[in-house]
Amino acid sequence: MTIKVAVAGASGYAGGEVLRLLCGHPRLRSGDLEIGALTAGGNAGSLLGAHHPNLLPLAQRELQETTPDVLAGHDVVFLALPHGTSAQIADALPPTTLIIDCGADFRLRDSDDWVAYYGGDHAGTWPYGLPEIPGNREVLRNASRIAVPGCYPTVSILSLLPALAAGLVEPHVTVVAVSGTSGAGRAPKVVLLASEVIGSARAYGVGGSHRHTPEISQALSEAADQPVAVSFTPVLVPMSRGILATCTARTTASADEVRAVYEKAYADEQFVYLLPEGSLPATGSVMGSNAVQLAVTVDERVGTLVVVGAIDNLAKGTGGAAVQSMNLALDWDEAEGLSTVGVAP
Amino acid sequence: MTIKVAVAGASGYAGGEVLRLLCGHPRLRSGDLEIGALTAGGNAGSLLGAHHPNLLPLAQRELQETTPDVLAGHDVVFLALPHGTSAQIADALPPTTLIIDCGADFRLRDSDDWVAYYGGDHAGTWPYGLPEIPGNREVLRNASRIAVPGCYPTVSILSLLPALAAGLVEPHVTVVAVSGTSGAGRAPKVVLLASEVIGSARAYGVGGSHRHTPEISQALSEAADQPVAVSFTPVLVPMSRGILATCTARTTASADEVRAVYEKAYADEQFVYLLPEGSLPATGSVMGSNAVQLAVTVDERVGTLVVVGAIDNLAKGTGGAAVQSMNLALDWDEAEGLSTVGVAP
Amino acid sequence: MTIKVAVAGASGYAGGEVLRLLCGHPRLRSGDLEIGALTAGGNAGSLLGAHHPNLLPLAQRELQETTPDVLAGHDVVFLALPHGTSAQIADALPPTTLIIDCGADFRLRDSDDWVAYYGGDHAGTWPYGLPEIPGNREVLRNASRIAVPGCYPTVSILSLLPALAAGLVEPHVTVVAVSGTSGAGRAPKVVLLASEVIGSARAYGVGGSHRHTPEISQALSEAADQPVAVSFTPVLVPMSRGILATCTARTTASADEVRAVYEKAYADEQFVYLLPEGSLPATGSVMGSNAVQLAVTVDERVGTLVVVGAIDNLAKGTGGAAVQSMNLALDWDEAEGLSTVGVAP
Amino acid sequence: MTIKVAVAGASGYAGGEVLRLLCGHPRLRSGDLEIGALTAGGNAGSLLGAHHPNLLPLAQRELQETTPDVLAGHDVVFLALPHGTSAQIADALPPTTLIIDCGADFRLRDSDDWVAYYGGDHAGTWPYGLPEIPGNREVLRNASRIAVPGCYPTVSILSLLPALAAGLVEPHVTVVAVSGTSGAGRAPKVVLLASEVIGSARAYGVGGSHRHTPEISQALSEAADQPVAVSFTPVLVPMSRGILATCTARTTASADEVRAVYEKAYADEQFVYLLPEGSLPATGSVMGSNAVQLAVTVDERVGTLVVVGAIDNLAKGTGGAAVQSMNLALDWDEAEGLSTVGVAP
Repeated sequence: MTIKVAVAGASGYAGGEVLRLLCGHPRLRSGDLEIGALTAGGNAGSLLGAHHPNLLPLAQRELQETTPDVLAGHDVVFLALPHGTSAQIADALPPTTLIIDCGADFRLRDSDDWVAYYGGDHAGTWPYGLPEIPGNREVLRNASRIAVPGCYPTVSILSLLPALAAGLVEPHVTVVAVSGTSGAGRAPKVVLLASEVIGSARAYGVGGSHRHTPEISQALSEAADQPVAVSFTPVLVPMSRGILATCTARTTASADEVRAVYEKAYADEQFVYLLPEGSLPATGSVMGSNAVQLAVTVDERVGTLVVVGAIDNLAKGTGGAAVQSMNLALDWDEAEGLSTVGVAP
Repeated sequence: MTIKVAVAGASGYAGGEVLRLLCGHPRLRSGDLEIGALTAGGNAGSLLGAHHPNLLPLAQRELQETTPDVLAGHDVVFLALPHGTSAQIADALPPTTLIIDCGADFRLRDSDDWVAYYGGDHAGTWPYGLPEIPGNREVLRNASRIAVPGCYPTVSILSLLPALAAGLVEPHVTVVAVSGTSGAGRAPKVVLLASEVIGSARAYGVGGSHRHTPEISQALSEAADQPVAVSFTPVLVPMSRGILATCTARTTASADEVRAVYEKAYADEQFVYLLPEGSLPATGSVMGSNAVQLAVTVDERVGTLVVVGAIDNLAKGTGGAAVQSMNLALDWDEAEGLSTVGVAP
Repeated sequence: MTIKVAVAGASGYAGGEVLRLLCGHPRLRSGDLEIGALTAGGNAGSLLGAHHPNLLPLAQRELQETTPDVLAGHDVVFLALPHGTSAQIADALPPTTLIIDCGADFRLRDSDDWVAYYGGDHAGTWPYGLPEIPGNREVLRNASRIAVPGCYPTVSILSLLPALAAGLVEPHVTVVAVSGTSGAGRAPKVVLLASEVIGSARAYGVGGSHRHTPEISQALSEAADQPVAVSFTPVLVPMSRGILATCTARTTASADEVRAVYEKAYADEQFVYLLPEGSLPATGSVMGSNAVQLAVTVDERVGTLVVVGAIDNLAKGTGGAAVQSMNLALDWDEAEGLSTVGVAP
Repeated sequence: MTIKVAVAGASGYAGGEVLRLLCGHPRLRSGDLEIGALTAGGNAGSLLGAHHPNLLPLAQRELQETTPDVLAGHDVVFLALPHGTSAQIADALPPTTLIIDCGADFRLRDSDDWVAYYGGDHAGTWPYGLPEIPGNREVLRNASRIAVPGCYPTVSILSLLPALAAGLVEPHVTVVAVSGTSGAGRAPKVVLLASEVIGSARAYGVGGSHRHTPEISQALSEAADQPVAVSFTPVLVPMSRGILATCTARTTASADEVRAVYEKAYADEQFVYLLPEGSLPATGSVMGSNAVQLAVTVDERVGTLVVVGAIDNLAKGTGGAAVQSMNLALDWDEAEGLSTVGVAP
């Protein structure tokens, strides 16, 4: 049986990344996987090659309108749509269709958080596509609806969860995460112009106003089994891909204790790579890959855990997590089509 | 009387920045200031233009050896030398010579800190060239020896000092500062190659090991009149100039209270610019200028002060502070030759 | 008498650069110059600081509508407007007002070229604000209307004119010029997003279709006193400012002959800097400055003149040329407020 | 039978890229391919992960000394060594070992060219690993020694060869190619520091002195069956990977004629992609891929062919060509382990 896949929102960065990974998926070559409808909003009617000239094998594919009719008849539908629009599409597709939403609509459990950070009605909560959270992998294997985590939450959660789950740190964490611009999407805005970004670093969403804040807090609080206060500051820097998160929390534990906890937590995770002592992650090393690189240390002078994590925001932070989730839900090897080898330098 | 200035270490970035600012100093045009000896280590004998092709008016100047003899006979000597080498030069020059050291040798008060972070003998402590610290300006006006602050300390201290001096925050602060590469100097290393840096963000000196940590702690502890624990993480990002520091500390104060304190603290400081609410600093905006841009907010949900500060690490972070200190010590207008206008975009 | 200056189109990059240079102009400090109305199109009503946070001294200035009424009563009016809109403003201002147009409307002599490359009516031809072209300086000293050259033409013309004027090369030249993105302006477009530009070089306007082609050809043909065929290809690279033009033409002359001609041509030009043999220009060296750096050589193996020229497209390529032209027309020292010192690294 | 592969010079960029591609080669997963010795010069004894933290699956592999003994016993040996050192290694290995040299030693036919551009003895000439040159593919299928082309030659030759082979242009071509810094290798030099490169474009090797000049000329002259004069200027721009070459030559042919010739020339080439009219290549689109994107046009106003070509200098420009050559020589599908999908944005 051939699994037929559609991508809604194919002309944006998230949709393009899902397609980039699908193009290299071994199930495509073997014929188990087929790329069906590619849809868009305003770009419907144009060729995919006009938007993603890097996807040469799909360059001649025409983008269709994003409608339930066009998406019907596919086994897997990836949604890479503006916030607040996924529910309507999802409701119109059969419950057996595997829907993987790269947007935020179904990530939060708390409707108040949704209203406070996104506004409008809360669509609901789907299984959270971060298999590295204990317990999630089993849920995802049986899911037909999956919410792909946000890019900042992915790296922040993986950086801090073991320490909080083990009760090693105070439930008050600080995350300062530098990011490339692709996470902000492809809609043209002055602040995202190359002329503004190159040669400049700037913070945004300061003071807890970034929409990924409640998502980070939700996962960490569940792991800690108590509310975890999250101070989150994103910083835009002159690169296209990559997030480097510096995560701190006060601790009385030693570096060795903490390290042992992280080693155990990620011993069986093929995409989470705990760097040897003295090594530090760089986003360039995970470019295009599904790997998460973590460095864990304790500044014992000031009683502070410092975890630095690096991911590719479009890969493990979006499209890679989407494909990883698909693999799980289809009962394929979780790593198919995903790599731990980054394109560097 | 014409003030004759020498720059030791003229072929590096710090020395070059001092010269860039001196080239635009109005006292040069008026004849009150004269650029005398330019010296170097391994580059002695070559022309300045080979190292700083941007300094066209000085391109034909030959670099001499960095020796007390060459530097003698100048009224002002800027030192931009490797750590540990300033004392020997300073000792050999008359006490009336104004010596402004861009290096770290004379910044720390605590000899144990020096030994722990730099090694070797502690040379001593000179007046600290950050006039925006209350009380410092008067000291600098009468100084003939000045230690220019480190780049990370400059922005970190200015971001946090008012809150700590006012007792508004817990004496445990977290600073995550992204920086361009010029702060790492001009000695060629693989990790500083463009191929490694472009497209990548990476932390370094994680866990409190960066040498600027005790310098930040020293100034903040003095302001707070109690020991301040500093968790400091520097992050290298793909730009040449600029530091953006995200500084957090727990607080029970409101955003309004904190803001009022900062407004008062910097009301008379022409180089410190408190951004209006909703605006956020970007390093691109202060490129080449002596300005410090600060955004101050409180994340009241989680009781955390967040201050984001931006400087040009070579200008206000090094060469600008050096020239500002010279102006003060020579009893000239503190702002001569310095600008609050950045080169952007 | 105080000269009152207005800038129309102050929220864009060209307008911002004119203001950056005016902020550092010594006549502003001395009171001979005053910055009057700042106007905009869609941004009218907002503060300048919202658009140019680097221009701290003008941050609180409110942008007014771009209308003849607002611009009336100024001695100098800089226009930094979309193509095709300058004539209407200019016609409504008195003939004694010094109008300096940073746009293309009055650069071309040949109406057919205007129609072919820009469309619509040709507004006319004003004195061309490139004083380094022999004969131009005198014209500009008496002008009350000045057309600032395009950025690519500035560096291309200065790179090739001496050779063509001296008859040293065939009248068929090739210019491949790499440029930062700021030359494309501030209107948000997908192709100018940081995510698209960073990590990528791309040509555009290939095959002679770029609008600066006839402008280059016009100046070179006049200098050569015969039609000069220009093959011009602009290439966008990941930087904000700067143009590096590689200009070639077939020649039978030797490197020494050519070099002598260029040395003579630019002997008295303070902003054109002929690099010593073996040195090559870099755009970083002229960042923020009004300097033009040229390297001139002949590839004698294949009988080809190669001239590489570097400018800052916003400075000497736009705002610097505008201020230089103003200085000339006001009979001030041509170099006031302009620098040959670049901000590097 | 398992093919055992060694990589000499594994800690540099070329060696790292060969390894990156081998890690994703399907024959590695199937067990037909095995990665054996990895060697280095000064880095021998260290772990590969210290140099290529992106190659997680090989991070624990220790680098051995580059000696014939270590390399013996492998079926395929990739050499990524400094110029002038390959012959000695090659001579000591059996003639049946497939040796693929990423360096320049065996690319040139003319010993005088070698001496003039590289100095020292000319080692000889091996089959040239650019299968897209007519006739080369057959030679490579039977080769046990292969010289991988230089990065600039790859894109320059593919951009111009069809026009010269068809006699459509004058045998005097101009190539201006912008490149990322990785092509300059990993040895630390001041001019390659991020601080120097970011925000700056600079030419180098101007006037025909770049070592790739005779290599381009050799291939084009053979195709044209007459000497082709090549004016070649490389330009370094602030990116890590990618070359964009703008290639021009005078022609009397029309755009349609030329286009037809190129379409025919590359009709069967899976890695050479002729962009539709109006589209232009960007290096970002071929990042990490083996694709060559070409845009072909004629500026009929001035009788000039303009071909713009884009490649990833490390992939198709080095490591990709090496793997493509290996595939051919081993009689595997030429495209195995190579992709036409770039990592963008």
